[in-house]
Amino acid sequence: MENKKIKIGLIGLGTVGSGVYKTLRNNNLVEFKKIAVRDKSKPRNIDSLDMSLLTENAEEIVNDPEIQIVVELVGGIHPAFDLIKTALKNGKHIVTANKELLAKNGEELFNVAEENNCVVLYEAAIAGGIPIIMPIKTILAGNKINKIEAILNGTTNYILTKMDMQGAPYEDVLKESQMLGYAEADPTGDVEGYDAAYKITTLATIAFRKRIKVDKVYREGISKIRTADMKAANELGYKIKLIASAKLDKNGNADVRVHPMLVSKKSTLAHIDYVTNAVSLSGYPIGDITLSGPGAGEFPTASSVIGDILAIAAEIGTTDYLLPMMRCHHHETANMIDIEDTINKYYLSINAKNNKGVIGKIGTICADNNISLASIVQKCVDQDNTANITVITELCREKDLRRTIDVIEQDEFINKVESIIRVQTLN
Amino acid sequence: MENKKIKIGLIGLGTVGSGVYKTLRNNNLVEFKKIAVRDKSKPRNIDSLDMSLLTENAEEIVNDPEIQIVVELVGGIHPAFDLIKTALKNGKHIVTANKELLAKNGEELFNVAEENNCVVLYEAAIAGGIPIIMPIKTILAGNKINKIEAILNGTTNYILTKMDMQGAPYEDVLKESQMLGYAEADPTGDVEGYDAAYKITTLATIAFRKRIKVDKVYREGISKIRTADMKAANELGYKIKLIASAKLDKNGNADVRVHPMLVSKKSTLAHIDYVTNAVSLSGYPIGDITLSGPGAGEFPTASSVIGDILAIAAEIGTTDYLLPMMRCHHHETANMIDIEDTINKYYLSINAKNNKGVIGKIGTICADNNISLASIVQKCVDQDNTANITVITELCREKDLRRTIDVIEQDEFINKVESIIRVQTLN
Repeated sequence: MENKKIKIGLIGLGTVGSGVYKTLRNNNLVEFKKIAVRDKSKPRNIDSLDMSLLTENAEEIVNDPEIQIVVELVGGIHPAFDLIKTALKNGKHIVTANKELLAKNGEELFNVAEENNCVVLYEAAIAGGIPIIMPIKTILAGNKINKIEAILNGTTNYILTKMDMQGAPYEDVLKESQMLGYAEADPTGDVEGYDAAYKITTLATIAFRKRIKVDKVYREGISKIRTADMKAANELGYKIKLIASAKLDKNGNADVRVHPMLVSKKSTLAHIDYVTNAVSLSGYPIGDITLSGPGAGEFPTASSVIGDILAIAAEIGTTDYLLPMMRCHHHETANMIDIEDTINKYYLSINAKNNKGVIGKIGTICADNNISLASIVQKCVDQDNTANITVITELCREKDLRRTIDVIEQDEFINKVESIIRVQTLN
Repeated sequence: MENKKIKIGLIGLGTVGSGVYKTLRNNNLVEFKKIAVRDKSKPRNIDSLDMSLLTENAEEIVNDPEIQIVVELVGGIHPAFDLIKTALKNGKHIVTANKELLAKNGEELFNVAEENNCVVLYEAAIAGGIPIIMPIKTILAGNKINKIEAILNGTTNYILTKMDMQGAPYEDVLKESQMLGYAEADPTGDVEGYDAAYKITTLATIAFRKRIKVDKVYREGISKIRTADMKAANELGYKIKLIASAKLDKNGNADVRVHPMLVSKKSTLAHIDYVTNAVSLSGYPIGDITLSGPGAGEFPTASSVIGDILAIAAEIGTTDYLLPMMRCHHHETANMIDIEDTINKYYLSINAKNNKGVIGKIGTICADNNISLASIVQKCVDQDNTANITVITELCREKDLRRTIDVIEQDEFINKVESIIRVQTLN
């Protein structure tokens, strides 16, 4: 019976790979034939690992005629992309967690897959353990999804939650997160929003059924968020989160971005804390749904990889055309709206000289530039006789807002516009 | 080309049926061949409905050789069960939203389906538009799920949310809900927990891969919840929700129930308000996830029905063995734990004579009966010189708690144990 099992080749035995191996090693449907690692002699936290499975040459896996499913968990573009292409050309189905590869080279990848009648599944690449890709492709297939708002990066959500709870500054919390292993030594990929941008690119592509170009996704990180902004947001009924969002307008233009956002406490996303991820979708006919859960980690991410493996394994042998709903059939590239042309509400924190005319002046400048204000509050006067003014605007165009900021900053009574953060628009 | 479309027979053109028809009428993969209704002459809120599709004889649909997918949206056991069985015997695949039928006759239904190599899909039967059945069966297939806590009934969640927000009593909010159409004229099925019990029966069956017997599901409704309990819960950091839960212990015994519960405000479920539904799952390797969204309504529920239809349609023509992961392969019946043997925390609201010894006495009675207390607070003294005492216990066995209540109620200083509500146990 052993030989009837479907054979898997695993490329990468890091955190997620270990979770996949541990969970699936005794499965009765699939078995590991080979596992490619960088260094066979490296000690691994896996009980009774069958060392004879290990190879340092991933080519052995993608060219092994017995292997039917290749699981790529090394990340990055090289050599993952070439390995996957070779595997596809050899008729192997792919399971990957490689968000960067999908965002940058997804189109070519899926074309090669279709040419070879293979599937590429990637549930683990977006929001870790949360079921999102397969649901969008299958049970939500009848929907026209037109909006996504999501927390897709656990590291930044952890940092923002800690800043909020402890009132501690960004730098301190980042250091603590690095010590605890929640942030990497070079945190750029997370804190500057690259990771979330990769993920929203793929998520928007499948939700809108149009290709989103990752280099046109607006991206802004969390490193400029101040504890004063956290405090002001709380008082106004908001939490500050790094939100990856995607909207499709009536004309089919896509607005896809990653940036900090003031999220209403009435919204589910405001209550997603620490390393938890969440995806809120709006569409027709479904309305609004939110899926939340662990966005990373050995076992949660393994759950998604394994789900993909089992979905492929279940149909190998019953059909020559596996998983028709999970394939990529859209080739249209979305027209993207430039961030300057988007319409948003804004939170502004302005440091000004303590002059009683200053609030009126800000109001006048805004009005002159087509910006209506929802609220303007002089929060406190500091010891150095400066005032902190918090402004929430109504919906306005980004380019109008930017021009307004320039004018405000030139004013003699204004010291600095300290923070500009976009505010969530509820339906 | 028109004739190449896969033909659907729709039984029931009520709220959900209308949503399905409106959304799918111009689909390029499927088309409606016949729609069975009780009364053809009834006016319907559907633009340019093709009246020639309507029939008052559902037998025409289940016996039509051209129809490949039968969508049953009438609910109840008769005649739905017989119609579905006939359709299956005629080789038709089934999409249904019939939670009562699944809970009571699911086993026979799935057996007939397998005998005829057909699938029965029912995403819409549980939690309306929220993707939950297909995710559990597919992308979460590698998990051992051991706990579900869910809000599965929108009517009761609406009533509890309103009671909480307005401080209004149950009877008043029920009447208002009936006027607004959120509760039925006879609300029993919702407010006494029958609807949620049907849903958790099926949800636990697929999550645990063991049949749950609906008549062994403990069920308790919301009609005894008082605004005083809401207020006390809020002060203690909880919300009161009607929770459908299912747990699998280490020995594989199932504890499945529906009853009001004090849910910690730290838990996502506490923030699920009005008619929204939510399902929290815990399992290995995934950890904890929560899926939330609209639990009912024309269009959200239609989303799930349509997802099921499209999943079937996508594989008709590519394989003779459709959707292997969506089939029912488990035949073991779960051993169920009796509610008396379950371990819970409890909230008690006790009305007592205003005697300074009474708190000590309650504490002693509890200790004598193996009940440890987390807190005991005399909340206020009423004008009639009685005291309201709020107790939160530590984990204890239900039968110990019940015996304790009997003893407390016999005490000379106790007027009444006004409320006994179980309290959520966080991991």
